[in-house]
Amino acid sequence: MKLDHIAVAVSDLEAAVRIYRALGFPFGGTQRVEAEGVEVAFFEAGEAHIELIAPFANEGVRRFLEKRGPGVHHLAFRVPRLEDALRRLKDQGFEVIPPEIRRGAYGRRVAFLHPRSTSGVLIELIE
Amino acid sequence: MKLDHIAVAVSDLEAAVRIYRALGFPFGGTQRVEAEGVEVAFFEAGEAHIELIAPFANEGVRRFLEKRGPGVHHLAFRVPRLEDALRRLKDQGFEVIPPEIRRGAYGRRVAFLHPRSTSGVLIELIE
Repeated sequence: MKLDHIAVAVSDLEAAVRIYRALGFPFGGTQRVEAEGVEVAFFEAGEAHIELIAPFANEGVRRFLEKRGPGVHHLAFRVPRLEDALRRLKDQGFEVIPPEIRRGAYGRRVAFLHPRSTSGVLIELIE
Repeated sequence: MKLDHIAVAVSDLEAAVRIYRALGFPFGGTQRVEAEGVEVAFFEAGEAHIELIAPFANEGVRRFLEKRGPGVHHLAFRVPRLEDALRRLKDQGFEVIPPEIRRGAYGRRVAFLHPRSTSGVLIELIE
């Protein structure tokens, strides 16, 4: 379980990009992820990176912003074999959402663990 | 600006430690940080680590938990020279709290940036 990225939900991507550049993080560009309905801006932060995500057609992120305002939306960790990790985690009572593995940014295979089962943190697993 | 740790606020430290062990993060033990009024449990997650923080005398973390429940409380980044970083960030409009540098866990010199100025994320800077 190595940290891949921290995703921060924002409403105004351009303004947030200016803030993170001013903070001193090297900027890695933006990407429109149609499958997720979000526009993403990438920043380096050592071995891991920060992703600012702004929804254009993602109800989950839009609701998050309405309810809590901008902030950390999820943490993403890399695992060697996703099926094995999910089987092990389900056996231990973690709730996998959606029930199936899907394709995330860059076509990587991903799954999520519901914050109900992880003391309040939405966790993305990336193969 | 390299990521040092992700701090997750929790109410029940023992239960949260069980969850993060079950997730597969190597456990690095706990520490009672009297100066901050929190008990901390450490987990490795690659180059960075995860800190679960449970307040016993920290009003800020207690209020966070009351308002939002458990979840990501702050992100901590390492900087080479804290005074220089704070001067540069103040000049760019970031709000430093508390106004002075103080001692964090392990006696390291730290300061925080208010989430008002960072699109919703409380940021700790560690020298």
